[in-house]
Amino acid sequence: MIPKGFVVTGVHAGIAKKKKNDLALIYSLVPANAAGMFTANLVKAAPVLLSREHLKKGKVFRGIVANSGNANACTGATGMKNAALMAATAARLLGGKPGEYLVASTGVIGQQMPAAPIARGVAAAADAVRAGKSDEAAAVSAIMTTDTLPKVSCRTVIIAGKKVTVWGCAKGAGMIHPDLRGLHATMLSFILTDAAVSRKVLEQTLTDAVRDSFNCVTVDSDTSTNDTLLLLANGAAGNKELQPGSAGCRAFAAAVAAVCLDLARLIARDGEGATRLVTVNITGASTDAGARKIAATIATSPLVKTAIFGNDANWGRVIAAAGRAGVAFDPDRVDISLGSLQVARQGGAVRFSEAAAKKILQKKEVSITLNLHQGNKSAVYYTCDYSFDYIKINASYRS
Amino acid sequence: MIPKGFVVTGVHAGIAKKKKNDLALIYSLVPANAAGMFTANLVKAAPVLLSREHLKKGKVFRGIVANSGNANACTGATGMKNAALMAATAARLLGGKPGEYLVASTGVIGQQMPAAPIARGVAAAADAVRAGKSDEAAAVSAIMTTDTLPKVSCRTVIIAGKKVTVWGCAKGAGMIHPDLRGLHATMLSFILTDAAVSRKVLEQTLTDAVRDSFNCVTVDSDTSTNDTLLLLANGAAGNKELQPGSAGCRAFAAAVAAVCLDLARLIARDGEGATRLVTVNITGASTDAGARKIAATIATSPLVKTAIFGNDANWGRVIAAAGRAGVAFDPDRVDISLGSLQVARQGGAVRFSEAAAKKILQKKEVSITLNLHQGNKSAVYYTCDYSFDYIKINASYRS
Repeated sequence: MIPKGFVVTGVHAGIAKKKKNDLALIYSLVPANAAGMFTANLVKAAPVLLSREHLKKGKVFRGIVANSGNANACTGATGMKNAALMAATAARLLGGKPGEYLVASTGVIGQQMPAAPIARGVAAAADAVRAGKSDEAAAVSAIMTTDTLPKVSCRTVIIAGKKVTVWGCAKGAGMIHPDLRGLHATMLSFILTDAAVSRKVLEQTLTDAVRDSFNCVTVDSDTSTNDTLLLLANGAAGNKELQPGSAGCRAFAAAVAAVCLDLARLIARDGEGATRLVTVNITGASTDAGARKIAATIATSPLVKTAIFGNDANWGRVIAAAGRAGVAFDPDRVDISLGSLQVARQGGAVRFSEAAAKKILQKKEVSITLNLHQGNKSAVYYTCDYSFDYIKINASYRS
Repeated sequence: MIPKGFVVTGVHAGIAKKKKNDLALIYSLVPANAAGMFTANLVKAAPVLLSREHLKKGKVFRGIVANSGNANACTGATGMKNAALMAATAARLLGGKPGEYLVASTGVIGQQMPAAPIARGVAAAADAVRAGKSDEAAAVSAIMTTDTLPKVSCRTVIIAGKKVTVWGCAKGAGMIHPDLRGLHATMLSFILTDAAVSRKVLEQTLTDAVRDSFNCVTVDSDTSTNDTLLLLANGAAGNKELQPGSAGCRAFAAAVAAVCLDLARLIARDGEGATRLVTVNITGASTDAGARKIAATIATSPLVKTAIFGNDANWGRVIAAAGRAGVAFDPDRVDISLGSLQVARQGGAVRFSEAAAKKILQKKEVSITLNLHQGNKSAVYYTCDYSFDYIKINASYRS
């Protein structure tokens, strides 16, 4: 359910080659606070540079214009002009300054965006927005590329008697390994809330939520030039502004974290060609950073990911990946389980039923757990398997 | 051509599931000097631990016993016993102490090796060795796993009137990303020479040769538990011992480097499922380390590797991979070429013929060159494309 005071829609602008919605417009009826996080890739797309600039200079924000079909990355001055056109067209038609609109793009890198479809698309979307009716499905589908399912999550919390809604959508199936200062994808995610909350609190809330959600998901270890996560809060719920450290603020933060985690898991589940959502759990680590590094190395290992596609309980590849993570631990203490089935103990084989392992591996969601027995730190990473379709999708993406 | 004073052979011992040669024996008729480099993976196979120990304690060496079909990794005390059995059986049958034999294994991780086939296999191989006749093809095939072609290279140099031969063989198609302190594979490579050369010079020669060969090849970025590179020099060529810094020593080092580079390229070319050998050239970098890091990131990018499989001149994926390497450079200065065809200039698109690009990409060997225009350092990395067969091979490796 779209939070109060927002209108979202999507249209077919003709930027993408396919006949599909390719331009999303999110509009807040009242000026909103915002926070954003962007790719850490050194190569940053024009919309990333522009949105970062707008967030830095602006105080309040009116909306988001996003397109699929073209990443507007490696496009130089013309690219910056096209990104600015997205914001300027929205401002001209819906009011406010261009700097009050944030933009995001996803698609092929290194090709110029066609300007005419952008202008046309924003105009059509603005018409819909002015009519005041949200089309959630149209908006969400407009940012999809190789995604096979729309990714939406919603939570409501009651804060001092007021119902506050947190709604988020995301796209991302390939070039996924978010690292939000810093995301890696192209992951785009927009989170809207009608809570009344200061920018400072929004920024902290987003940073905290990202650490264990978007920053723990990978499909192919390739960090995108375009990753963008935006959070708008317009205060339409009518609550008193959330005070840092208050129970209401904690409830709000929990809702944002839950939405981010839902979306991150949906991204892994819908990774390009994925047949399985894989959760990598590291427990018993001596440091948080070490736990994360080992989890990430296992989650990105092509040999682990292909083994899962093949329903192969090949735990040797899991421990081998852990061993190359650059984190100190004693291999002879490591226990490994698939789901609830232990497959290795103290770094060596245990007898287990291959049939039972296969049954676990064939489920839509597979968890791999390594207990390092070194300390009490842990980490969770979300990934997917590597299938024939991963190759198929990516060998023909541009053509 | 096998260097003087060495006998090499291979037999079917029954360690591998397939009916193929799976045990190689290399024997030097006279005690040889040796140098070795091993995987940097924290999880080290029993044969790696044993060979490292033997090299540390021993002065001269008689031979190498290697098997495929079982990695003897994550196998604890029993694994160490089986590795020791390989060396001890060779010593008993061919003379010398167990510590004068080096061992190596490749295959599935986490399963115990069967002891009986090892003993039988070494005995059969020792019989062949005693007969004095090398069977190069049998030896090389005995270490192959998912390799589709044998990997052999040979150079001869004349040093002060004496012909010196450097011969090397290697296996490795998956779990390949050598980092020889430190290799990542399971890459096994054995280099034999009849040169008279001290251990100290051997070690330096090997370290130097590895830097730009085995340590610059990747198939799947997964570092093995078993990578082993051994160099034996038995002096049978009759040259005066090579003096460090002499012309003869330089010629010898060049021959070893050439053999290592040949083998590294063969490994990339024969990567699991590979249809193309891909050379990633970074020029104009400000540091050597930065150049290597960018080359490695591009060479391991699943999106770059699948694009090449699809004959897709998708340079955006190349620059995106460079941008996530963690090395500072100005994206707006980067030029990119495929073979001799420029596809990007100053970080943006240039017009190029897609047909010409396709022709270049369809060749058996594809080179990607990035000039960063930041300095004068460079690096070369060897990799391969990701194909349907990569998935097929690795989804069913253990079964």
